[in-house]
Amino acid sequence: MLHEIAPRSGVAFTLDKGQRLTVIDPRGEQVADLLAFSRADTNEVISSGRTLDYASRIYLTTPDPLYSNRSNIMLRIVHDTVGRHDFLLTPCSKDTFRIIYGDKEPHRGCFGNLAAALEPYGILPDQIPVAFNLFMNVPVDAVTGELKVLPPLSKAGDHIVLEAETDLIIGLTACSALQSNNGSFKPIHYRID
Amino acid sequence: MLHEIAPRSGVAFTLDKGQRLTVIDPRGEQVADLLAFSRADTNEVISSGRTLDYASRIYLTTPDPLYSNRSNIMLRIVHDTVGRHDFLLTPCSKDTFRIIYGDKEPHRGCFGNLAAALEPYGILPDQIPVAFNLFMNVPVDAVTGELKVLPPLSKAGDHIVLEAETDLIIGLTACSALQSNNGSFKPIHYRID
Repeated sequence: MLHEIAPRSGVAFTLDKGQRLTVIDPRGEQVADLLAFSRADTNEVISSGRTLDYASRIYLTTPDPLYSNRSNIMLRIVHDTVGRHDFLLTPCSKDTFRIIYGDKEPHRGCFGNLAAALEPYGILPDQIPVAFNLFMNVPVDAVTGELKVLPPLSKAGDHIVLEAETDLIIGLTACSALQSNNGSFKPIHYRID
Repeated sequence: MLHEIAPRSGVAFTLDKGQRLTVIDPRGEQVADLLAFSRADTNEVISSGRTLDYASRIYLTTPDPLYSNRSNIMLRIVHDTVGRHDFLLTPCSKDTFRIIYGDKEPHRGCFGNLAAALEPYGILPDQIPVAFNLFMNVPVDAVTGELKVLPPLSKAGDHIVLEAETDLIIGLTACSALQSNNGSFKPIHYRID
């Protein structure tokens, strides 16, 4: 069964150990922010710092594992037709739109969408860490360290598959930031197998 | 008054709004992991994801602000004789030494040192995020995304000064990982003005 996440919105759901989550970019150039919390204890959460340290790489793809703040493997990338995702930046938020875009009445962003979707699981906004931002294209200049948010490399139908290595609560969005999605807001599809 | 942090150890202390924290590398090539929590609510914590997004750069220096997970400025870099620090990686831990170094009886690392030092302030280990790793030299390959932990660029006496923009609890270490400190463990000095 294919689920659709409407543009600029987000969802949360459970994923059991051994299940596979397929996230599809149906139209291309659309980012999906992904969070994972341990169902046994939601204080255990996906960690960019642990994962990048153990991978010795900022760009992750098959067969990289995604670690928690307790250094346990939460998910593993088992299939990936794009190969460029971001694990440096936090979900866009009201403050992102205020500070970066100068919006007067800012959208709640992926952060607000994730916070709302995760609330029924007892997860508080302050627990939201750096997300694994699927299809987000953030190259880094090796000399200056400058990062740029460029259009995603994903084309219509591109997808990534992640397998759960423990029982999880997943937060997932169709990202709300213009710059991340080459100027337009599109849906995200996902499937659980 | 100059304080010394012994090799492979860590401390925590309060820093009032307007106070300046000077962190000195007395012998050179020694990393110090820095954490900051809001004293008003320790669920508000320094955030690499927010800070790097707003800076559009992974290397921070004067006069960059360090943001919290709530997008408030916690600290600002007001003086910096090195200009190369890391904000990608979590504090080294038992698991770091087990996974990366293959140690059989791993040291508790900066993570364990910070957890112990922050415990009297009611801060739990799971609240420890990506640290701002002073003097840590982690270049990134722009094409492959590979990151390397190279010797710090700091020489004896080099230092960084951070000014608090709100009342804070600070965690600070003399880093415990061989690779981060060019193969030897040295002290860190700090001063509050």
